[in-house]
Amino acid sequence: MFVAKVKSDIIKGIIEVTSPLVNEAKFNITAKGLSLRAVDPAHVAMVDLELKNSAFEEYKASDMELGIDLDKLSGIMKLASAGDLVTLEYDEEANRLIVKIGNLVRRMGLIDTAGMPDSKVPHLDLPAKAVVKAGELHKGVRASEAVSDHLSLNIDKDSFELFAEGDTDTVNLKLPRDMLLELQSPGKFRSLFSIDYFSNMIKPVRSEDPITINLGNDNPIRVDFDIAEKNGHVTYLLAPRIESE
Amino acid sequence: MFVAKVKSDIIKGIIEVTSPLVNEAKFNITAKGLSLRAVDPAHVAMVDLELKNSAFEEYKASDMELGIDLDKLSGIMKLASAGDLVTLEYDEEANRLIVKIGNLVRRMGLIDTAGMPDSKVPHLDLPAKAVVKAGELHKGVRASEAVSDHLSLNIDKDSFELFAEGDTDTVNLKLPRDMLLELQSPGKFRSLFSIDYFSNMIKPVRSEDPITINLGNDNPIRVDFDIAEKNGHVTYLLAPRIESE
Amino acid sequence: MFVAKVKSDIIKGIIEVTSPLVNEAKFNITAKGLSLRAVDPAHVAMVDLELKNSAFEEYKASDMELGIDLDKLSGIMKLASAGDLVTLEYDEEANRLIVKIGNLVRRMGLIDTAGMPDSKVPHLDLPAKAVVKAGELHKGVRASEAVSDHLSLNIDKDSFELFAEGDTDTVNLKLPRDMLLELQSPGKFRSLFSIDYFSNMIKPVRSEDPITINLGNDNPIRVDFDIAEKNGHVTYLLAPRIESE
Repeated sequence: MFVAKVKSDIIKGIIEVTSPLVNEAKFNITAKGLSLRAVDPAHVAMVDLELKNSAFEEYKASDMELGIDLDKLSGIMKLASAGDLVTLEYDEEANRLIVKIGNLVRRMGLIDTAGMPDSKVPHLDLPAKAVVKAGELHKGVRASEAVSDHLSLNIDKDSFELFAEGDTDTVNLKLPRDMLLELQSPGKFRSLFSIDYFSNMIKPVRSEDPITINLGNDNPIRVDFDIAEKNGHVTYLLAPRIESE
Repeated sequence: MFVAKVKSDIIKGIIEVTSPLVNEAKFNITAKGLSLRAVDPAHVAMVDLELKNSAFEEYKASDMELGIDLDKLSGIMKLASAGDLVTLEYDEEANRLIVKIGNLVRRMGLIDTAGMPDSKVPHLDLPAKAVVKAGELHKGVRASEAVSDHLSLNIDKDSFELFAEGDTDTVNLKLPRDMLLELQSPGKFRSLFSIDYFSNMIKPVRSEDPITINLGNDNPIRVDFDIAEKNGHVTYLLAPRIESE
Repeated sequence: MFVAKVKSDIIKGIIEVTSPLVNEAKFNITAKGLSLRAVDPAHVAMVDLELKNSAFEEYKASDMELGIDLDKLSGIMKLASAGDLVTLEYDEEANRLIVKIGNLVRRMGLIDTAGMPDSKVPHLDLPAKAVVKAGELHKGVRASEAVSDHLSLNIDKDSFELFAEGDTDTVNLKLPRDMLLELQSPGKFRSLFSIDYFSNMIKPVRSEDPITINLGNDNPIRVDFDIAEKNGHVTYLLAPRIESE
């Protein structure tokens, strides 16, 4: 059983976070809330999302999996205005998700979850940590897109730094300790990442909200932020690019 | 003779209502106001529009027909801001329409109306009637576009219903009597229509304004609404689609 | 040496004025300010722009030339919000322009100015002058684009007039003396111009700001307006089109 009532913006947020990596996702439903984990087709990035039942206006569920076409769900959510409440209900007989927005009832076919893998979050030893305002990262990424397709992230004892280099042009965003919300680093750490992937990961976060970055040397990065007014959480992992030089 | 001064929004409204069906229209001018009637090239839909002289700030006219390129007139109206007054004047010698917007004078060539047919509004026996807020129909139509290219409209004694069905997905918008502005129906009536055509018909109406729907069984639909602060009226007819199943 | 701090909007204004004519421009830097002069590849139009050091929050410079890719600089300026201060600094060793926006440092490769010609502003005897509100010209140009690819400008003792003519349609914008900010004309003067070029010239000017037009008979036009709150000035020259009839 699954019946939930929720602000449309929260569902839109889930889609925004997940759809850059996959078109279809397996939503794991329990009495405590919903979660999903997905890896992009190139196996470069993973998203791990949790949304507690406290994020919902109403929530009743037993354990189940729902295979959802994210494009389709996104289209349905466009029928709801900001702040509109949406009811989601699983129709077991027809294997459909029933979405109610006001007097509108939209029945949506589900995808077989049998072929959708259960990914495990790998254990990573990432010694450096910085908490950065999303707006700073947005600006750094937008600047970097003009000069290269990859950027390096650097954390040392005193600062967080984003760097991108093209043939003639460079981008450098250096945030000293006093411009960071938090900084912990036992030394110097640096890894290189695809700008496209990194950009998609931080795009859903509002400029004034914090993003936590955990970094090692030529290791995957872990990016964490809250959603749904702290009733939900997103973790992204992104594999490093190998420096060609 | 034809000289009229009118808010640009009213002319924009005429174009919005008519241009989904035809590129060129014959405006029938009399001392009482203007009217036009047009049928789309596929003969699926008809628009019948009337605008009383009371819709104009100034109006002086004798009987005449003006053949107007709607795209061109639309382009000219874009030069006027919302609320701007526009003067329309027929230049008989040059067979042009003179459009004045502030100090700008735009002379527009007219189209020969000789080849433009005079359509008659067919008599239809449509027993069911519902008056619906346009915003509800807009939402139902947008939802339907994602699942099918046709939708059914249904009126019975207690409700108005819009229904669309795709391979796996459905849309259902049911408005009970208390959510309608008016409902009259001696039984159950249902017809199927092209979503594209129906969408274009209701699109010009503001969300909070009422739309009157007259419906029979597998019969054309009649859609009525007011324009120009009730100084004008639009009637659309739309032929039904035959169910393939 | 060149170090300057300036509102991003002022740099955006320079780009807006110059980029319709050329992709790359040579900025001439002196202690008094910067200037640039550019001619479009077809040699139809010239822009001559001056920006005094008073337009800058901070300004220190010795004489030099900077060859700048305007598209690239435009992209960098998009990283700055309206009102943001931007620091520009010439890095002589690396021959780069360093652009600082907040904590972001963007180093931009410069273009060799050796191949960029020094254009001279030709002397023109243009007897008629009218100062027109930009918004009126914007409207006249937009209307004209729909009927032709060229327009004529006319100044006589009593009025300024813009005229465009197509096969069936015409545009006429006549501004009598009392609708002009200034009018000086010893007779009747008229020249024909490309709408595309003329449109690009007046587009950067805000609707409520004045544009000065100097006109002769079948001669180039000179268009003048201030930028950067009168701390800068732009002069455009545009060659006339020869009437084909």
